[in-house]
Amino acid sequence: MPVVIFNPGSKKIDVKSGTELLDAARKAAVEIELPCGGKGTCGKCIVRVISGNVKFDMVGVLPRSMVAEGFVLACKTKIMDTSVVVEVPEQIGRFDGRFADNHDDILLVRQELLPKKWNYDPLAYKWTLDVPDPRMGDGLSDLDRLTRTIQKDWGKCEIFYPLNILKLIPKMLRVDNGKVTVTILREGDKYRVVGIEPGNQTTRNFGIAVDIGTTTIAVQLVFLPTAKIIATKSDYNKQIDCGLDVISRINYARKPERLLELKEKVLKTINNLIGKLANENEVKTGEICNAVIAGNTTMIHLLLGIIPEYIRLEPYTPAVLNVPYLTAIDIGIDINPYSWVYISPSVGSYVGGDITSGILCTNLATDTDEINLFIDIGTNGEIVIGNNDFLMTCACSAGPAFEGGGIEDGMRAAAGAIEDVNIDKKTGVASYSTIGNIKPKGICGSGMITLIANLFQTGWLDAAGKLNRVLPSPAISFKGRHAIYTLVQAENSGTGKPIIISEQDIENIIRAKAAIYSSCSVMLDEIGITFMDVANVYIAGGFGRFLDLEKAKIIGLIPDIPPGKFKYIGNSSLMGAYMVLVSQDFQRKQIEIAKKMTYIDLGTNPGYMDQYIAAMFLPHTDLSKFPIVKF
Amino acid sequence: MPVVIFNPGSKKIDVKSGTELLDAARKAAVEIELPCGGKGTCGKCIVRVISGNVKFDMVGVLPRSMVAEGFVLACKTKIMDTSVVVEVPEQIGRFDGRFADNHDDILLVRQELLPKKWNYDPLAYKWTLDVPDPRMGDGLSDLDRLTRTIQKDWGKCEIFYPLNILKLIPKMLRVDNGKVTVTILREGDKYRVVGIEPGNQTTRNFGIAVDIGTTTIAVQLVFLPTAKIIATKSDYNKQIDCGLDVISRINYARKPERLLELKEKVLKTINNLIGKLANENEVKTGEICNAVIAGNTTMIHLLLGIIPEYIRLEPYTPAVLNVPYLTAIDIGIDINPYSWVYISPSVGSYVGGDITSGILCTNLATDTDEINLFIDIGTNGEIVIGNNDFLMTCACSAGPAFEGGGIEDGMRAAAGAIEDVNIDKKTGVASYSTIGNIKPKGICGSGMITLIANLFQTGWLDAAGKLNRVLPSPAISFKGRHAIYTLVQAENSGTGKPIIISEQDIENIIRAKAAIYSSCSVMLDEIGITFMDVANVYIAGGFGRFLDLEKAKIIGLIPDIPPGKFKYIGNSSLMGAYMVLVSQDFQRKQIEIAKKMTYIDLGTNPGYMDQYIAAMFLPHTDLSKFPIVKF
Repeated sequence: MPVVIFNPGSKKIDVKSGTELLDAARKAAVEIELPCGGKGTCGKCIVRVISGNVKFDMVGVLPRSMVAEGFVLACKTKIMDTSVVVEVPEQIGRFDGRFADNHDDILLVRQELLPKKWNYDPLAYKWTLDVPDPRMGDGLSDLDRLTRTIQKDWGKCEIFYPLNILKLIPKMLRVDNGKVTVTILREGDKYRVVGIEPGNQTTRNFGIAVDIGTTTIAVQLVFLPTAKIIATKSDYNKQIDCGLDVISRINYARKPERLLELKEKVLKTINNLIGKLANENEVKTGEICNAVIAGNTTMIHLLLGIIPEYIRLEPYTPAVLNVPYLTAIDIGIDINPYSWVYISPSVGSYVGGDITSGILCTNLATDTDEINLFIDIGTNGEIVIGNNDFLMTCACSAGPAFEGGGIEDGMRAAAGAIEDVNIDKKTGVASYSTIGNIKPKGICGSGMITLIANLFQTGWLDAAGKLNRVLPSPAISFKGRHAIYTLVQAENSGTGKPIIISEQDIENIIRAKAAIYSSCSVMLDEIGITFMDVANVYIAGGFGRFLDLEKAKIIGLIPDIPPGKFKYIGNSSLMGAYMVLVSQDFQRKQIEIAKKMTYIDLGTNPGYMDQYIAAMFLPHTDLSKFPIVKF
Repeated sequence: MPVVIFNPGSKKIDVKSGTELLDAARKAAVEIELPCGGKGTCGKCIVRVISGNVKFDMVGVLPRSMVAEGFVLACKTKIMDTSVVVEVPEQIGRFDGRFADNHDDILLVRQELLPKKWNYDPLAYKWTLDVPDPRMGDGLSDLDRLTRTIQKDWGKCEIFYPLNILKLIPKMLRVDNGKVTVTILREGDKYRVVGIEPGNQTTRNFGIAVDIGTTTIAVQLVFLPTAKIIATKSDYNKQIDCGLDVISRINYARKPERLLELKEKVLKTINNLIGKLANENEVKTGEICNAVIAGNTTMIHLLLGIIPEYIRLEPYTPAVLNVPYLTAIDIGIDINPYSWVYISPSVGSYVGGDITSGILCTNLATDTDEINLFIDIGTNGEIVIGNNDFLMTCACSAGPAFEGGGIEDGMRAAAGAIEDVNIDKKTGVASYSTIGNIKPKGICGSGMITLIANLFQTGWLDAAGKLNRVLPSPAISFKGRHAIYTLVQAENSGTGKPIIISEQDIENIIRAKAAIYSSCSVMLDEIGITFMDVANVYIAGGFGRFLDLEKAKIIGLIPDIPPGKFKYIGNSSLMGAYMVLVSQDFQRKQIEIAKKMTYIDLGTNPGYMDQYIAAMFLPHTDLSKFPIVKF
């Protein structure tokens, strides 16, 4: 078999001839970024073949001069029958964990978003029982006595037991004279006993809420007996090595082994976060008895290892919207193996459980005639509009810009991220503050919005997103036809390199904000109202600590309506997952929300493309739409 | 670590010091019989320590002279810190498969036992569906469309899908334009989809009925679309290496690794039989979609790996009587992994699902006022008495004699087993016929009954079970105080050794028949009737092809009432499992039967011991109880 050696590092791997170079790299644990998902269009998986024969597709992205020097795209190159030495250029480790020292408390869900009145009624209970001793001739098994004792407290419910719990029952009933703590999961009127321990263990009962974003994953540890949030942690979804957005991931997942790879990557991210949370808070992972997961439809397919292919292809059909009852061991999540992993219901291929979860944190589906708008700004942007009568939803591909993806020095809202920026009007030079008040490492969503808004307001950036080429500024430099804005000089940077934003980055941000704004416009047009008719606008997304609404208006991300109507609700997907975790009422409400939502496909909407192009300026081509904000 | 070498064969194994010699033998795959389950009372695990230090308990069963020569009981001996060489005497391979060429058609359940009218309605269906194509904007997932199509045919049922089936759905719906065959298992009003294939596969649908006896396991392959029995196979339960009866097995199972060993042994037996049945009938094991298992309570605990310990200890509490929904993969049975393995409900620690299954084959629980009696003669004997109004049951430890266990040349009813015997009144010499008309290899239950009855009737055996010491017979020889009856000379035997029956064997048979008869008597006394008041007597058990009722009366195994009242129903546990497999009605009826049964504990019954001792003669001490039969 041919041997492939990857340098630097001399990582060796035996492969069959015909193996894709990318697959060889994956097997050898050589990290190669693949934002386009392996279509050969992004050019990020470029490597150089030093020796040996390979077969590669010529694709437009590589200049002939580079091909002549041995450069190839790993995703379009196959190993032949000879051994090969490959050099992997050092890639910018955008998502490589250099921002690991997170200040994740900024992700703490804000309890003030909980409705005023709600029933504490978690899906998972630990319950202490005194099971009577067996008596001669009572005709009852251990299981019968346990079931009857549970039914005494919980009513005549049907109770399920997995085999491994069944096996524990005889011993457990006899350790402490029949005093046991059972862990009960309730799915409607079905009860499942997923744990049994001797004595009273009701205070060792934890749950996790999980938000699986395309770019970022957040896990929250909750003490179930009081619904108290203990801690929250987040990290990049390791799948970003395989594509930045859902379409790239779906493309990547077309081979079964890559579908498995994506499943393993998301599980690794989640399980790492669970492990850290458990460890730091002296919780055993086995004491976590319930998980509620919210994520977009593709993320859920990938988590479960279900082919997402048909989400991408007309007529855009997901395999599953409402996931049946599954356990942690079914999926591979490192908590009590028989725990229920409840997955928030999706509405369609591009409106997932993150949105049904987010709507729970708003009054969109409550007793109000007022029409409210919900905007979730992530790698995909999702919009919901509605009241007690109807809910309408659509999705647009905003891209991961606001989460730091596809931006040279972008990063998610973690320690070291620049979250606020001021621009000196005269010099164009920036002053800034970072999360955690440490040396800057990059710029997060809220930082980018403020930066672009301020550059625009101070005249260093024009409405088309071009940096000022007339006035000289020490912060602006040029590379051929392109200009670059330097936010932080290398000597002040936490990474040792300058922190910059290029015109390409700015264009990405403008595309993202245009997608969001125009989607909202189209939705309003559909029901024949204007932004001014909207009672409340809920904005969700993993920006910095707070989104500066004024600045978001200046770049045209959100409509220019009175500030009092806006509510920034942060990671509402995670918050909604938390709400379901602690109350069956919220779970039921979420199912109703999912049923009630009508999905609008923007791809087939005739007005969308015009609206989108019109929104590709700062703030918009039609300034009459932004009457209040001061430029 | 000390090394243990077992001779002959020089099997070597490294063990920790302190390991029991028996465990070392198990690890080294050295077969050592253990009928008593490791209590040190049977003396069957005797081995000789040739060199090295061991620590052993002196127990009464070994003479001092043997101990002096290095003989020890493997179950009572521990390896110390030195290596040891052990000699394992060649044991008589009573259960070693020398009877492997079974004529298992004798186990075919008799279709005439099925009630006249019954609904064909198996627990597992394969069903062909035409799932409509997805349409743009229909808001339905693949799963939704599949579920709706099933519900169109089956009504608004709740449908469950295991994750691995969920994963198959997107591809399967697209292979043959939405034409798929789903495998549906119905548990009451809950439906589970456990398989999905493209096209019409309804004819590849099989089920198995399994009877797990303490001594013998029988598996029957059924073609579900027509309820046709394809074939039946049986074999010794491999657990008999670890104890002959349930109490020995429970003792053996006290260490967790031995509990696991017992589970693995029964699974190995079952899976071997399934493999052979599937192979010989060109069925893939994955096409077997449902299993119904009947077995006594201890056998079910061991199959599931649940501690059976408390069955043995007062107040004799099983861990479970009604086993919840479990799948083949949960238990480890080699069929479609998501198949339901339905386990027939038990009534008490000593009356199991084999009996609730057996009662299905009788009219005990039907619309009759007549009182009927059911006697299942296996390693345990179970008795049920009742009518449409009540069902009363008890169990007695008969021992495995009638299945060939604990009898020098006993064997189960398989090819080569002597099933009928005649005795020459003058010489005492036997003539015989075997199952399959081949050279005799041993004697099965029905053969033993006929042999003893005929020896008794011809005067070569007395009422106390002693062979004639007055008249000389070439068939009778003496070993000290004990006499031996030679049924087949070595030259005529299929094993090359003579086939004999000793007075000890005869005593074992008398003990077994006395236990059965006296249990019936006690039950009748309880409700204040006599044998003559009983309308029908159903006799179940894995004897030969047919039980000779006349001979069974002569030895006093069954009561002496008119022959027309007896019905020999063979392996009714297997037959009942088959009935549940092919009709949900039978499943429901079986659950009712289990609920209706009252369990009587013979151990606490004051009259039982007297009755038992009175029955320890041929046919009985009180001959007035046997008025009809001719001696």
